[in-house]
Amino acid sequence: MDNTIAKAIQDDYPDDFSWCYGCGKLNENGHRFRTGWQGKNTITIYTPKNEHTALPGFVYGGLIASLIDCHGTGSASLALHRKNGHEPGDSAEPPRFVTASLHVDFIKPTPLGIPLKAVGTIEEIHPKKFKVHTEVFADGKVCAKGEVIAVVMPSTFMDN
Amino acid sequence: MDNTIAKAIQDDYPDDFSWCYGCGKLNENGHRFRTGWQGKNTITIYTPKNEHTALPGFVYGGLIASLIDCHGTGSASLALHRKNGHEPGDSAEPPRFVTASLHVDFIKPTPLGIPLKAVGTIEEIHPKKFKVHTEVFADGKVCAKGEVIAVVMPSTFMDN
Repeated sequence: MDNTIAKAIQDDYPDDFSWCYGCGKLNENGHRFRTGWQGKNTITIYTPKNEHTALPGFVYGGLIASLIDCHGTGSASLALHRKNGHEPGDSAEPPRFVTASLHVDFIKPTPLGIPLKAVGTIEEIHPKKFKVHTEVFADGKVCAKGEVIAVVMPSTFMDN
Repeated sequence: MDNTIAKAIQDDYPDDFSWCYGCGKLNENGHRFRTGWQGKNTITIYTPKNEHTALPGFVYGGLIASLIDCHGTGSASLALHRKNGHEPGDSAEPPRFVTASLHVDFIKPTPLGIPLKAVGTIEEIHPKKFKVHTEVFADGKVCAKGEVIAVVMPSTFMDN
């Protein structure tokens, strides 16, 4: 498994958008998920901490849901950014997305102690709305499948 | 809002099932969600930490998904436990559930710094499978809605 994500979209989020507990580069207590391109797919790789247990030896479902959530918004941002002619690291500010809905099917117990790899396939369903299908692999086996509907953050988001 | 859950189902889980990052009473680093009855509904109340941010001032969606997830399995356990003639605190060991699927619709940005209240409505769809509909309230307003399919943990769960 290629464990390197050289250029992640989250690295380019402006500071005021970098406090997400899942994927904010400035949130020292968070997971700091990083999402990048791998061909036409997107990937996020994360090794859960020992405390992220469901039952001993297996990964907590809420952590998997969190991974799928941030992988989804990051993937949508990557997709619209590319549509706008940009790639991570080219110094343009990426579009910001929020999650409208999140769905996770837990396929099998996910072993703790190894890297999880989320692989996303992106579908544009509206110029400002993307559906991201994600499979989460542990040791090459699919442990969970997810779907995120991500929408461009409304300018009034924080006024609601 | 009634902020007290006198008797939570998680208090009665046996020790080997009490390490969940979301709701395990023995996981000192976890959220330690506690779920109890409120009439025919179930409730879980949790105040997110300052670090559980999406954007500054708002709660991280993955935390809300985690709350809905553990609230769902806890609610299913409460329901089957009651069907079996038991209530939390009566010293009987509750049935153990795992999440088959999780769905969350994020209705509006969820303010950080106040208690979140998850309220569940339980639907039995099979003797070993329950659907739990959950609404998450902040300051009396619904911020997210969720649905969990919870199934009795197979005896082979950890062998998969």
